Amino acid sequence: MAKGKLLYAQSGGVTAVINATAAAVINTARAHGVATLAARNGIIGALREDLYSTAGFSQAGIAALARTPGGAFGSCRFKLKSIDEDRPHFERLIEVMRAHDIRWFLYNGGNDSADTALKLSRLGRKLDYPLTCIGVPKTVDNDLVITDCCPGFGSIAKFTAVSVAEASLDVQSMMETSTKVFIMEVMGRHAGWVAAASGLAGASRDEPPHLILFPERPFVMRDFLGQVRDIVKRHGHCVVVTSEGIRDRHGKLLADTGHKDAFGHKQLGGVAPELAAAVTAKLKLKCHWAVPDYLQRSARHLASATDLAQARAVGEAAVEYALEGRNAVMPVIVRQRDRPYKWCIEPAELKRIANREKKIPASFISRDGYAITAKARRYLAPLIEGETEMDWGKDGLPRFAALKLKLLKRKLPEYVL
Amino acid sequence: MAKGKLLYAQSGGVTAVINATAAAVINTARAHGVATLAARNGIIGALREDLYSTAGFSQAGIAALARTPGGAFGSCRFKLKSIDEDRPHFERLIEVMRAHDIRWFLYNGGNDSADTALKLSRLGRKLDYPLTCIGVPKTVDNDLVITDCCPGFGSIAKFTAVSVAEASLDVQSMMETSTKVFIMEVMGRHAGWVAAASGLAGASRDEPPHLILFPERPFVMRDFLGQVRDIVKRHGHCVVVTSEGIRDRHGKLLADTGHKDAFGHKQLGGVAPELAAAVTAKLKLKCHWAVPDYLQRSARHLASATDLAQARAVGEAAVEYALEGRNAVMPVIVRQRDRPYKWCIEPAELKRIANREKKIPASFISRDGYAITAKARRYLAPLIEGETEMDWGKDGLPRFAALKLKLLKRKLPEYVL
Repeated sequence: MAKGKLLYAQSGGVTAVINATAAAVINTARAHGVATLAARNGIIGALREDLYSTAGFSQAGIAALARTPGGAFGSCRFKLKSIDEDRPHFERLIEVMRAHDIRWFLYNGGNDSADTALKLSRLGRKLDYPLTCIGVPKTVDNDLVITDCCPGFGSIAKFTAVSVAEASLDVQSMMETSTKVFIMEVMGRHAGWVAAASGLAGASRDEPPHLILFPERPFVMRDFLGQVRDIVKRHGHCVVVTSEGIRDRHGKLLADTGHKDAFGHKQLGGVAPELAAAVTAKLKLKCHWAVPDYLQRSARHLASATDLAQARAVGEAAVEYALEGRNAVMPVIVRQRDRPYKWCIEPAELKRIANREKKIPASFISRDGYAITAKARRYLAPLIEGETEMDWGKDGLPRFAALKLKLLKRKLPEYVL
Repeated sequence: MAKGKLLYAQSGGVTAVINATAAAVINTARAHGVATLAARNGIIGALREDLYSTAGFSQAGIAALARTPGGAFGSCRFKLKSIDEDRPHFERLIEVMRAHDIRWFLYNGGNDSADTALKLSRLGRKLDYPLTCIGVPKTVDNDLVITDCCPGFGSIAKFTAVSVAEASLDVQSMMETSTKVFIMEVMGRHAGWVAAASGLAGASRDEPPHLILFPERPFVMRDFLGQVRDIVKRHGHCVVVTSEGIRDRHGKLLADTGHKDAFGHKQLGGVAPELAAAVTAKLKLKCHWAVPDYLQRSARHLASATDLAQARAVGEAAVEYALEGRNAVMPVIVRQRDRPYKWCIEPAELKRIANREKKIPASFISRDGYAITAKARRYLAPLIEGETEMDWGKDGLPRFAALKLKLLKRKLPEYVL
């Protein structure tokens, strides 16, 4: 066995199952006799030399980790620029790796993180430090290219479909004398995958959700209101699921607050109340709206078994690829069959993935732009299949991991970001 | 066995377990050889003579009904005024009961519905029609007096506590470079029971939720912002749960939209975005907010086993009381012990319950107004205990009841409301 340690870090928005990937990484590395370090708050911890040892984690602790939402080691939104622009950061990273004898680096994130892993993989070579960098996929946005789907997406998809199915029954009960229109806003800045998944709640367009709003299609208020009015006439109620990132014909976000996050992404929120106000004002229909926000991506209690299996599988494969010295790759999910669903993991080059974004193909959205097609349904259906076990306490709450995280003693001078 | 039929109707906002009460009513009546009719959309269906027969329901169908959120027969917000003011309505109700030989009427709702059942119980006597009226408790607001808690509340309480526990892990993962303040808005117009239940997610005030906002306490923005700032300084993040109905010192609702529902209640919504805007503007802290709205009261997949058992028990007792001829009562939940939790069902007079509202006692809220006390914890803890089975389909979605509802042929002339 090659000597050296493996460094694992979590990046970007977390998911219900990213810790299942972490647990798989730790266990697989252990099986190979390799110690895993975990960076605190993603790449920031690697820069600061804020590293946790996982050596003391018990098997029960690792099992609990796999059942815990959020990112147990902390995640971050921190984008490194080009190697030339951010050279001190990249060199510091290599310095930290060298100081701790880290030979393998696994960065668990989305397309921004794949970019960071890719850059670092190149610099190791340049600086003649033997480092193997692997990107490990994770994102509820499901917007990574090459991979058939992204770990984390199946669970948010299941949360969304189940929630729409449940809430629609509530709306139907009350529609004669109370709420007639219910609008739920889901995540999805540029790609409407989460909104699309809500379509699984109904078998046809006559069942909720009656309207899905995708960022891939321009939003036209007049047309939308006409649709709502017609659906309420036909069914007595109308359930709408909207992506946070819908835009008008001119590309203007309905929910543009003007704020930006650390990656320079616009911070959105509030499309549902916006639409609800229009429905109330123009159609005079009683309207309720919901914005589950973080609830949707942290609902570990509703994680999909398919998603959980894939989150584990990419963690296992990432360690295998790393130890085989396959630099600058990502384990991706390859679909072999729709029904019964079959998939496997294969390596793909990071340079094909970094900084790209997979939107919903046109063939997945109905001609009128308000529903998913049969093709989309075939793609989405297997991803929400299966339920997962929780460890419920006697108090009626899930028992989450309570790992004792202790930072390793630093070997290098302090590095201020 | 007395001849005659039993009429069951659902009223007001529905819950995750009101159909479990309905299932218990149907089964208990069947066991006594009594047929149950169900009114479509609550008292409105009784007025219009829109009545469903439940005779054709299979045992499997009734079992599925008990696992289905929403109100399967339809509910309504429709308040009857005094017998003198709404005499035609009350007389019509008696006429419908007479036409269908209905001797027992069970109205499943909150304090408004208890009032309707009480009035009808009096009119039966006046008009010499032998009708026994029972109020069956149900409300996520947990605001009925006499009963220790209300069926429906335990499940929304569990949803809220679990969601806060899960989402807080998400926030903690990201707090260094992203969201520092997370605000979740929950139901509760006048009584902060749902918000209080979120307190079960943390064992102490150092754990999320860090701040709970109750409608029972005046909201002071300046003080709130100071609290948020201090908590973020101490813990790096702050999780807030707010009742929809918080008011300032002058009694003005933070979320006053000006709209009213059919009961004349103000329609609220939007406290969380309001608070988030203040946090962003005044404290310059990145803030996310969630409004789960109907998701919280329809999340049957997270129903509490305690709540489900109580929802069934009040349905069973209601039928027993009805058949015993105990007019104008409600089966209420009596707490016998906190730990281990013991409870039983007893009858209470509707006149003691109708139109009253139970707010959170002062002893349940901490001196500073932002947390629950140990006493509140003792009260709330057992209500979220235990998980319930769902019937998951192979498609990863819950299988809900698909009852074939067929209206009985009308015997009376049409009645236009």
